[in-house]
Amino acid sequence: MLPLQVAVCGPRHCTDDDKIHAREVGSLLAQAGVTVICGGGAGVMAAVAAGARAANGLVIGVRPDNTVADASPDLSAVIVTNLGEARNAIIVWSADAVIAIGGSWGTLSEIALAKRRGGIPVITLGSWTILDRDGNPLPESVIVASSPRQAVDFALAAIPQARPQEIS
Amino acid sequence: MLPLQVAVCGPRHCTDDDKIHAREVGSLLAQAGVTVICGGGAGVMAAVAAGARAANGLVIGVRPDNTVADASPDLSAVIVTNLGEARNAIIVWSADAVIAIGGSWGTLSEIALAKRRGGIPVITLGSWTILDRDGNPLPESVIVASSPRQAVDFALAAIPQARPQEIS
Amino acid sequence: MLPLQVAVCGPRHCTDDDKIHAREVGSLLAQAGVTVICGGGAGVMAAVAAGARAANGLVIGVRPDNTVADASPDLSAVIVTNLGEARNAIIVWSADAVIAIGGSWGTLSEIALAKRRGGIPVITLGSWTILDRDGNPLPESVIVASSPRQAVDFALAAIPQARPQEIS
Amino acid sequence: MLPLQVAVCGPRHCTDDDKIHAREVGSLLAQAGVTVICGGGAGVMAAVAAGARAANGLVIGVRPDNTVADASPDLSAVIVTNLGEARNAIIVWSADAVIAIGGSWGTLSEIALAKRRGGIPVITLGSWTILDRDGNPLPESVIVASSPRQAVDFALAAIPQARPQEIS
Repeated sequence: MLPLQVAVCGPRHCTDDDKIHAREVGSLLAQAGVTVICGGGAGVMAAVAAGARAANGLVIGVRPDNTVADASPDLSAVIVTNLGEARNAIIVWSADAVIAIGGSWGTLSEIALAKRRGGIPVITLGSWTILDRDGNPLPESVIVASSPRQAVDFALAAIPQARPQEIS
Repeated sequence: MLPLQVAVCGPRHCTDDDKIHAREVGSLLAQAGVTVICGGGAGVMAAVAAGARAANGLVIGVRPDNTVADASPDLSAVIVTNLGEARNAIIVWSADAVIAIGGSWGTLSEIALAKRRGGIPVITLGSWTILDRDGNPLPESVIVASSPRQAVDFALAAIPQARPQEIS
Repeated sequence: MLPLQVAVCGPRHCTDDDKIHAREVGSLLAQAGVTVICGGGAGVMAAVAAGARAANGLVIGVRPDNTVADASPDLSAVIVTNLGEARNAIIVWSADAVIAIGGSWGTLSEIALAKRRGGIPVITLGSWTILDRDGNPLPESVIVASSPRQAVDFALAAIPQARPQEIS
Repeated sequence: MLPLQVAVCGPRHCTDDDKIHAREVGSLLAQAGVTVICGGGAGVMAAVAAGARAANGLVIGVRPDNTVADASPDLSAVIVTNLGEARNAIIVWSADAVIAIGGSWGTLSEIALAKRRGGIPVITLGSWTILDRDGNPLPESVIVASSPRQAVDFALAAIPQARPQEIS
């Protein structure tokens, strides 16, 4: 049976805290037997790959350009899409849950595409805050985590028993 | 010479105000000789198409699915992508400016993808508010308009003299 | 009601005959009130755009890269996909019929993707020959035309009365 | 360092010989330490996945639809693209070499897209024959193999020492 797949999204240019968080999230997912899907580049992407690899996990990078030249060396395999940021939709569709770490426009697009898809949990850790028109947290949007452990626990707990893809 | 192309983004399910705004934006763009790019579906997309058509403008719908069945009847032409929401990246890449009307996850993804692309103005009219981590409007993100006329004026004024695509 | 849309596919680098054929096909399609979809670049793409424009037709270019810089000046509108050759699938999905002129690998991929889609006629004019394993023309694959007029007549005659997209 | 990645392409509906060939190719690639990229579905795709898995290899399926429901159970990981056959371009871009087994329109599109990309060897095993306009084998197009062993040997021997992606 196919292992669960969790996407970890985040920017190339990120804070040191983001990197530490991403590495720990990658490690915890791998220890849980979960395959990590990421963008395969630098920053948060490289950190989550390094964490997953160090824990002997499987981590797949989905690249926007037409080369493996900029791919993280810790990836198990690289999907070279040549689709630019349209590849963000692929990352989201390939995941049973999405964890966003840190904030960039690309990461925001992944959060939005994951919510647009629906049916999978979206967890944020030091990422964008989603507010309603009155400035209050938008209910039923994202789950806000305050630590890598919490992000992974929230993600795994919120994945539907039946894969959402199999329902529709 | 190719006319300017402005993308108008917004949800299928929208408010009556959003529809009125979208129709007016479509009309004003067409009157300015600008080609409208939109998602080609219902709601904001249908309203902007109707407005552009009524003003004898050119309006292209870029559909996510594999059929023209749900395309707005006011489109001049339909691009059938069969790419799902990955088509949002195409809408953004095809535009000299993006105007977002109303708020859905798909619209948020288009705002984020437009900012990720960079180099083109992004105008919002009754859409998502982009705040920084302190809850203040994020500088140099989106231009907030309060009327269809203002949205179109802001968009056309902010388009670089040289097409941003031709610079890079 | 949306006009019929016919894709005309062919290489950037083509013979003089291919260019003459493409220009005439573009002209004939425009005269028939059909919207032309093409790749929007040089060679066959530029020639079909020039022919359609000269006949006051609508012609949309679907570009593989992230700029309008290399787009034919005769296009009515440009869809900038930034998807590379994956955009060939979009051209095929957007068409009620496909006419292939001249032969390149990209053109062959479009013929193959159109047959993979199914339900629409595929006409070749000086393009790839499709043979079965015994070296005979593969039945029910492509319709071979020997002139631009014949290519357009074959295409328009073979388009199903009901749009194939509306059947499935 | 990232292992080599070879794409094995072929139809859902295939002959028994195609399945036997695909399974053997998957096994041989895995034994050589090569990661297998495939379409992740039935027929040739399922057989190559089974062969790779039985040899403890890594095999990634790149699906055209929006679900893992039809994915082969032998895949190590599934990339869910929701891009339809446009995903064929991703398979081709992710590969250091392409082996086509059996013949369908989808497989032909992958051969053509691989040649369009250029710089990587394309091997056929009981697949389409590529002829020039005189009916002779087109030079410098595909390498025709007559057995799974030969297909794998040809592929691995023809992969450039430096990754082609890193040259351009």
